Amino acid sequence: MSGFRLALINPNTDAGHTASMAGVIEEVLPADARVSPLEVARGPRSIESALDGTIAAAEVVRTVQDHGAYDAYLIACFSDPGLHAVRELTSAPVVGIGEAAYRAAAMVARRFAVITTLRRGIADLEDAIDAAGLTRRCAGVLALEIPVARQGSEFPQTTERIVELGRVAMSELGAGALVLACGGMADVATVVGETVGIPATNGVAIGALTAYGLWRSGLRTSKRGAYAPPEPIPYDGMPAAAPLVAP
Amino acid sequence: MSGFRLALINPNTDAGHTASMAGVIEEVLPADARVSPLEVARGPRSIESALDGTIAAAEVVRTVQDHGAYDAYLIACFSDPGLHAVRELTSAPVVGIGEAAYRAAAMVARRFAVITTLRRGIADLEDAIDAAGLTRRCAGVLALEIPVARQGSEFPQTTERIVELGRVAMSELGAGALVLACGGMADVATVVGETVGIPATNGVAIGALTAYGLWRSGLRTSKRGAYAPPEPIPYDGMPAAAPLVAP
Amino acid sequence: MSGFRLALINPNTDAGHTASMAGVIEEVLPADARVSPLEVARGPRSIESALDGTIAAAEVVRTVQDHGAYDAYLIACFSDPGLHAVRELTSAPVVGIGEAAYRAAAMVARRFAVITTLRRGIADLEDAIDAAGLTRRCAGVLALEIPVARQGSEFPQTTERIVELGRVAMSELGAGALVLACGGMADVATVVGETVGIPATNGVAIGALTAYGLWRSGLRTSKRGAYAPPEPIPYDGMPAAAPLVAP
Amino acid sequence: MSGFRLALINPNTDAGHTASMAGVIEEVLPADARVSPLEVARGPRSIESALDGTIAAAEVVRTVQDHGAYDAYLIACFSDPGLHAVRELTSAPVVGIGEAAYRAAAMVARRFAVITTLRRGIADLEDAIDAAGLTRRCAGVLALEIPVARQGSEFPQTTERIVELGRVAMSELGAGALVLACGGMADVATVVGETVGIPATNGVAIGALTAYGLWRSGLRTSKRGAYAPPEPIPYDGMPAAAPLVAP
Amino acid sequence: MSGFRLALINPNTDAGHTASMAGVIEEVLPADARVSPLEVARGPRSIESALDGTIAAAEVVRTVQDHGAYDAYLIACFSDPGLHAVRELTSAPVVGIGEAAYRAAAMVARRFAVITTLRRGIADLEDAIDAAGLTRRCAGVLALEIPVARQGSEFPQTTERIVELGRVAMSELGAGALVLACGGMADVATVVGETVGIPATNGVAIGALTAYGLWRSGLRTSKRGAYAPPEPIPYDGMPAAAPLVAP
Amino acid sequence: MSGFRLALINPNTDAGHTASMAGVIEEVLPADARVSPLEVARGPRSIESALDGTIAAAEVVRTVQDHGAYDAYLIACFSDPGLHAVRELTSAPVVGIGEAAYRAAAMVARRFAVITTLRRGIADLEDAIDAAGLTRRCAGVLALEIPVARQGSEFPQTTERIVELGRVAMSELGAGALVLACGGMADVATVVGETVGIPATNGVAIGALTAYGLWRSGLRTSKRGAYAPPEPIPYDGMPAAAPLVAP
Repeated sequence: MSGFRLALINPNTDAGHTASMAGVIEEVLPADARVSPLEVARGPRSIESALDGTIAAAEVVRTVQDHGAYDAYLIACFSDPGLHAVRELTSAPVVGIGEAAYRAAAMVARRFAVITTLRRGIADLEDAIDAAGLTRRCAGVLALEIPVARQGSEFPQTTERIVELGRVAMSELGAGALVLACGGMADVATVVGETVGIPATNGVAIGALTAYGLWRSGLRTSKRGAYAPPEPIPYDGMPAAAPLVAP
Repeated sequence: MSGFRLALINPNTDAGHTASMAGVIEEVLPADARVSPLEVARGPRSIESALDGTIAAAEVVRTVQDHGAYDAYLIACFSDPGLHAVRELTSAPVVGIGEAAYRAAAMVARRFAVITTLRRGIADLEDAIDAAGLTRRCAGVLALEIPVARQGSEFPQTTERIVELGRVAMSELGAGALVLACGGMADVATVVGETVGIPATNGVAIGALTAYGLWRSGLRTSKRGAYAPPEPIPYDGMPAAAPLVAP
Repeated sequence: MSGFRLALINPNTDAGHTASMAGVIEEVLPADARVSPLEVARGPRSIESALDGTIAAAEVVRTVQDHGAYDAYLIACFSDPGLHAVRELTSAPVVGIGEAAYRAAAMVARRFAVITTLRRGIADLEDAIDAAGLTRRCAGVLALEIPVARQGSEFPQTTERIVELGRVAMSELGAGALVLACGGMADVATVVGETVGIPATNGVAIGALTAYGLWRSGLRTSKRGAYAPPEPIPYDGMPAAAPLVAP
Repeated sequence: MSGFRLALINPNTDAGHTASMAGVIEEVLPADARVSPLEVARGPRSIESALDGTIAAAEVVRTVQDHGAYDAYLIACFSDPGLHAVRELTSAPVVGIGEAAYRAAAMVARRFAVITTLRRGIADLEDAIDAAGLTRRCAGVLALEIPVARQGSEFPQTTERIVELGRVAMSELGAGALVLACGGMADVATVVGETVGIPATNGVAIGALTAYGLWRSGLRTSKRGAYAPPEPIPYDGMPAAAPLVAP
Repeated sequence: MSGFRLALINPNTDAGHTASMAGVIEEVLPADARVSPLEVARGPRSIESALDGTIAAAEVVRTVQDHGAYDAYLIACFSDPGLHAVRELTSAPVVGIGEAAYRAAAMVARRFAVITTLRRGIADLEDAIDAAGLTRRCAGVLALEIPVARQGSEFPQTTERIVELGRVAMSELGAGALVLACGGMADVATVVGETVGIPATNGVAIGALTAYGLWRSGLRTSKRGAYAPPEPIPYDGMPAAAPLVAP
Repeated sequence: MSGFRLALINPNTDAGHTASMAGVIEEVLPADARVSPLEVARGPRSIESALDGTIAAAEVVRTVQDHGAYDAYLIACFSDPGLHAVRELTSAPVVGIGEAAYRAAAMVARRFAVITTLRRGIADLEDAIDAAGLTRRCAGVLALEIPVARQGSEFPQTTERIVELGRVAMSELGAGALVLACGGMADVATVVGETVGIPATNGVAIGALTAYGLWRSGLRTSKRGAYAPPEPIPYDGMPAAAPLVAP
C-alpha cells in the first residue's frame, strides 16, 4: 500500500512547537509515511484555559478546511480541541493526543497518573478522563504549576519537577504509568519514564501511531450518526462548513 | 436592589430568533430587569452539528468580550457553546439553557425525555446529559428530524410532531416531563405541555430565571480554580483574552 | 401576574430558625411575593441523624397536608426530607434546599466542597450528591463537628471554623465554591464567601429563588409517573393521603 | 448458641399480610429460631407511593422503639422504609427485603428483571437499584398495574400476569432471574420460578436468611460513622430517639 | 428438609488453610449441615497476583467437575476465581467469599474499608468492588504488605498490623466496617473487630451462610442466559466441560 | 529500528483459525515485522462460555511462559483471556483484541454496536465494555445465535446474518460503527463494513497495530503496581510462575 499521509494539526500558533512534534512523529512512523505539520494561523500561542481551547478549536476546524484531504489527522493538544467537529468534515480517521495517551497508558498499567501544567486545568482533565470512561483507571492528576510555554527538553528544571511529581504519583498514588498531558512534554517522555521507573506516554508519538493503526486496519470515520457531514446551513461572515473530499 | 441586567447571547446569527427569545425573557423576569439581546456577528445561522457548535462557541466568546460587563449571561443554545470559556471571563453568573432546562425538568419529574431536532444530535445530547449527571433521570432522547430552521410557533406542523413524540415519551418511555432541546422551541413549550399533559421546559425562560436566581442570591462565578481569569498568553492574529471588569 | 405565594417548610420544630429563614427569603424574592413560614408541629428540634430525618419527613408531609395550597413549596433542610412525597401531593413546584444548593454551586464552579455539621452525616450527604449526579463535581465533604443547634451568625466561633474548613477546601481540595450544608448556616454565607474568597451558597435563598424560577417559567410538578397523586389506599389511625387542590 | 430472635417489621397495617410473611420465615429459619411479627400501628394499609413510604418509615422507627431489642430486624417492604434510621437505633443487623432480594438475584443470574405492582413505582425502584450499585445487573423493571392489595396466592389472575411478564423479561430482556418486588408476592415465588423457568426471589425468605447469616457470622451494625446512635436532640410532641439496649 | 451439603473449594493448594476454613464454617452452619472441604490438586500455594488467580480459576473448575454435585459451592478466595465458570456447571448456588463479604459489610455500615495483603493487589480489589457496584460504599483499600502465607492467628504480628490499619481506616477514612480481604484472615476477624471497635468480616463464615441462605430460600443458579450450561464444544488434551447432575 | 516481533496467541486450539489470523496481521504490519502464531496446546476448540474462557486463560499463560520473549503479545479472543496475567509476566506490551476493537470503534463513531455469536455471551461482553469505561458509547450488543465454529468468510450465511444485524444496529440503535466480537469474523469485516455502510472493526488487525503502536512509541508494560512480576510463590503439580526475560 502506498504511503500514509498524516496531517499534524497544532492547535496553537507556536511554529517551533509544531516542528518539534513533527520530528517526534517522523521518528516513529514507517519510512514511507509523510507528516504534514500545520499550525493554526491565529489564536493563542499556547493553550491553558478553556477560553484558549474554545478559540483554538474553531481555528483547528478552519485549518483543516483550508488544507485539503489527508489519510488521517492528529490534533496535537491534550484537550483534543475540535475533535468531534473535524470528524464531521472527513471520513479519514481523526485522533486527539489526549484520548490516545489515556488509552495507551491504560493498556500498560492498571492505574495511571496525569501530570499537567497548571492546577487550573485539573478539573478539565478529570472531566475528559471521565468522558473517556477512564476515571477508575486514573490514580490522580497532578499539576507542575509551570505553564505550557516552559515545557520541553530545553527547560531542564521543568523536567526535574515532572520527575519529582512522577515519583509522588508512583509511591503515594499507586500509579503504574504517567500521562504527560501536554504536547510540549513529548520530547522528555523517555527520560522521565526511565528516571521514575514507570512508563511515561509521549502523546504525540502514540497519537500518530494510533491514527496510523486505524487507517492501516481499514477503519474510517463513520459518516452515519453524529459524525455525518455537517448540515448545509448558511453561515454569515465566513464560509459555510464543507466536508473534505477524500484523496 | 437596582435592576438586573442580563446579556442574552444567541450563538447563531438569526436575529429574528434573538428577538423572539428576548421577548420570552422579558415576560418572565421582574419588571425592573433589563435584557440585552446580543447575537454573534458571524457563524452558522443555526446550530445542528458539532462543527456548527465549535465555530459558534468561539463567536460567543468574542461577542461577550466585545460588549462589556452585565450582571449575568445566558447562552441560548442547548449545547451551551462556550459556557466554560465565558465563565473564565467574568465573575457574573453564566448559565446555558441546556443545563438549566435539564435541571429544571429533573425537579418536576423523576424521569424526563428530550425532544431534539435531528437524529444526528442525539449522541451529543446524551453525552451532555451524562456530563450533567442526569443520565439516570433521562428516559430517552427523541428526534423530530426537522431542523432548527423550522422550529417555532410559525411552523404548526413541527408543533404537531413535537406533541406526537411527547406522547410517545410519556406513554412508552415513562417520561413525566419533556425537555424541548432547541431555543427555537421556546414559544411552543406551553402549548406542548398542555396538549401532552406533562410539563415541557421553555429553556430560555428557565435559563433566564436561573441566571436571575444565582445573581439575586449573591452567587458569583468563582475566580479560583477552573474559572479563574484566562492566563496572560499572547494571541496571534486576534486580541488576547481579557477578563471583563465587573459593572 | 399576581404575587407568588411560597410555603417555607422548616422540617424541624425550631421556630426561631423558621423565622430567620423566612427573613432571608423575603430579602431575595420580588416585592409582591409572599412567604408563609411553616414549621412542623412535632419531631426533632434539629436534624442530625437519619432517624431525625425519617421522623421529620413524615411531619413535613403532614404539615403540607394541613395547610392548603401554595404556588410553590420549599423544604428547608439539606437532606430534603419528604421531597418526593410532597411532590405527589401537589402540582406546584417543590424544591429542597439541598438539591438547589448543589446545583447552584455546580454552575459557579467546576468543583465545589460541602461543609456540614457532624462527621456522621458525611456518608448521607455523599449519597445525596451522588443521587443528584454531582459526585464528580464534588471535591469533598468536610465536617465542623459542631451541631445544627450551634449554627448561625450568633455563634461566631462556628463561623470561624467554617472559614477555616473553607480555606482547606479551596487550597487542598481545589474547591472553587462552598456549599454550606445546613439551613442554619444561611445567614453567614455572604461573610464566609467573602472571607474565604470563593462563592458560598445560601441554600435557603437559592432554594426560594429556584422555586420562584420554576413557577415563573410555568413549570409545574408532573402529575404523570412517579409524582402522580397518591393511590387511594386506606390509612389506619391517621387520615389517608389526599392531594392538595391547586389555588 | 442459643436461638435467634428475629423481629419482622411489616411497614403497613395489614395484619393478615404480616402473619403470612411470618409463616414464610418460620419455614426457612432453623428450628430454634423465633420470629416476632410486628406491624406498624398506624399508617397506610399498603405502600404504593413515596408518600405512603415516607409515612410508613416513621412508623417503622416508632414500632422498633416500642418493642425492645431483638437479635436482628427485617423490614418487609421492597422500598426498605426506615432502614438507615433503624440501623442507628441498634447494633443488631437490620435488613430490608429489597436490598436482600436484589443482591440474591445478582448471585444466581448475570441479569435479573424486577416485577412490581404499579408503573408509578418504576422510577423509585430503578433509583433503589442504582443506589445498590446494581443498575448494570438489572435488565429492566416491569409493572403489573395490579396493586399491592391484590397480590398473593389468593389472586390467581395476578400470578398469571406475573408469569406473563416474567416470560417477557426472560425472552425479550434477557433476564436470568426475577425479583418479585412486593412482600405480598412472597408466597407465589416458587410457582412463578418453576412456571417461567428461571429463579424468582422470595424477598421475605431471603431477607430473613440474610439477617440470620449476618448475625450468625458475628456481624453487628456498626456504631461508628453513619450508624452511630442518634444525637441527643430534643424532640417536641413525641419521645426523643433512644437507641435500644442489646438483649 | 434434609441436611445441607456445601462444597468448600479452596483455590490454593494449602491443605492446612482448607482445614482451618472448614472449621470456621462448621461452627456457623446449622447442626445438620455438612461441609466437604476440597482444595485444588495443582497450582499456587497462595494467590497474590492475577497470574496466580488465572491458574487457580482453571483448577477450581477442574476440581468442581471432578467431585460430583453438592447443594451449594463456596469459592474461598477473595478474588472469586472461576466463579462465573462454576455457575455454568451447576444449578446449585455458587458463592465467592469476596462478593459475600463486600455485600455483608455494606449492610452493617454505610462505608467500609478493605484490608488486603500486598499493595500490588489493590487495583484488582478496587475493580472487583466496582464490578460489584460498591465503589461509592468503599472508603479505601489498604495493604499490609504481608503476604497470604503469613496470615492467620498463628502470626500475631500480622494481626497487630491489621488492627493498626483498621484504626487508620476508621479514623481517617471514615470506615464503619472492615473487610478482611483474605481467606487466611478469617480466624482473626472477631478479635480485629473487637479491638478496633467496628465490625470486621469473616468472609468464609459469611460466604458459607450466604450460600446456605440462597439454597434455603429456594434460589438456584439460573440455567438461562449467561449461566446456561457450557456449549458442547470439543476440547483438546483434556475432557470437555460437562455440567454436573444435581443431587 | 530493527524488526518488530509479535506473538499472536490464539486462546483456542483451532490451528486453522490461528493461521488465518496470522495472515490478517501480516497484511497490515510493516514489512520488517514478524508474527509468531502460537495456539494453546490444550483446551476448548472455540470459546463460547465463561468456562471455556477460564480454561483458556490458564492455557494462554502457560503458552506464553513456554515460548520465550517477544516484542509484544496479542491475545486473539474477544474476552481477552489471561490479559492481566500475561502482563505480569513481561515488560513487553500485551494487547487483547477486545479492548483494542472497542477503543478503535469509539474513535471512529460516537456510538458503536457489538455483534457477537451467541446470546448467552451478551452479559459478559456488556460487562467487559463497562469495565473498559465504554458503556455510554455502546448502542447495544446483538447476537447472531451462530457459534464461533461457523464464523469466517467460508460461511456466507453467517456473513449475511451479520450484515442484517448490522443494519438493525445502524437504523434502530443509532450505531455509527460495528464491533465484530469474534476473532473468526476478522476476515469479513471489510465486506460487512462496505455492505452496511458504516465501519466494522477487524479486531485482529487493529489489535496487532495497537500492539505495534505501543511498542513503537516506546511504551512498555509497567513493572510497578498491579503488573509487577508475580510473587515468588511455590506451585504444586506445575512449574511456578516465572517472568520472561526481555529479548
